[in-house]
Amino acid sequence: MHITRYTDYSLRVLMYLALKDDELSTIREIADSYGISKNHLMKVVQELNNKGYLQAIRGKNGGLRLAGAAEAINIGALVRDTEQDFALVECFGEGDGCVITSACQLKRVLGEALESFFAVLDQYTLADILPGGKARVMTRLLNIG
Amino acid sequence: MHITRYTDYSLRVLMYLALKDDELSTIREIADSYGISKNHLMKVVQELNNKGYLQAIRGKNGGLRLAGAAEAINIGALVRDTEQDFALVECFGEGDGCVITSACQLKRVLGEALESFFAVLDQYTLADILPGGKARVMTRLLNIG
Repeated sequence: MHITRYTDYSLRVLMYLALKDDELSTIREIADSYGISKNHLMKVVQELNNKGYLQAIRGKNGGLRLAGAAEAINIGALVRDTEQDFALVECFGEGDGCVITSACQLKRVLGEALESFFAVLDQYTLADILPGGKARVMTRLLNIG
Repeated sequence: MHITRYTDYSLRVLMYLALKDDELSTIREIADSYGISKNHLMKVVQELNNKGYLQAIRGKNGGLRLAGAAEAINIGALVRDTEQDFALVECFGEGDGCVITSACQLKRVLGEALESFFAVLDQYTLADILPGGKARVMTRLLNIG
């Protein structure tokens, strides 16, 4: 079971920006801090910008920052928004190859489990992932500020 | 988000055998019924045999059948058993590439969500996925019996 790299990186970018508060960040800086590819991050940042999670300020002194408060970004909503495909098994998709979909209860049971998964994530915001006491440790680990 | 094809096929094989009761089935027959590759199923069946979920009877009149009652196969336990990797994001794995793992709460939150996912699956057995009323429809769809 995996969450896509796309969601993983989306979460990391927003966590990074949350730790920087209003200070602007660059994609290169975020990529270097996590030791991940700048190219991978480009598309992630563009999508997060399109979806209104972050603001990209253009120009020489430009950069990225969160579009709102970390407390306003719900983790469940974010993961639903960034995961493109919730077809846990083949039969979730349209035009699947299984002949028994109509009578099979597996889809319903897995769907119920997935709802329960998201119900937990819905209880947390981006701010909860950066609790007060630990935020300073993370700031140091990421060499921010 | 995906469950591996391996788990998907494991569930389908066991559902098929449950519908056939004590009657023996062949891999070819199961593959044909679902319209999936016989080669893919070979390894799945071998592993399910090794793990004690099914019995493979050798010989000319041999075949496959469930090792026990469908009511005794818990879906949560089965999915835990067949999914090899629960690293929802990179940082779940060992030797991950993220510098902030030690301070980050994301891992804990995703782990809690995953527990909740399995807590739902734990409530169901293979028999629950084949409810009485629908079993006959499935039997017809799979051309069994």
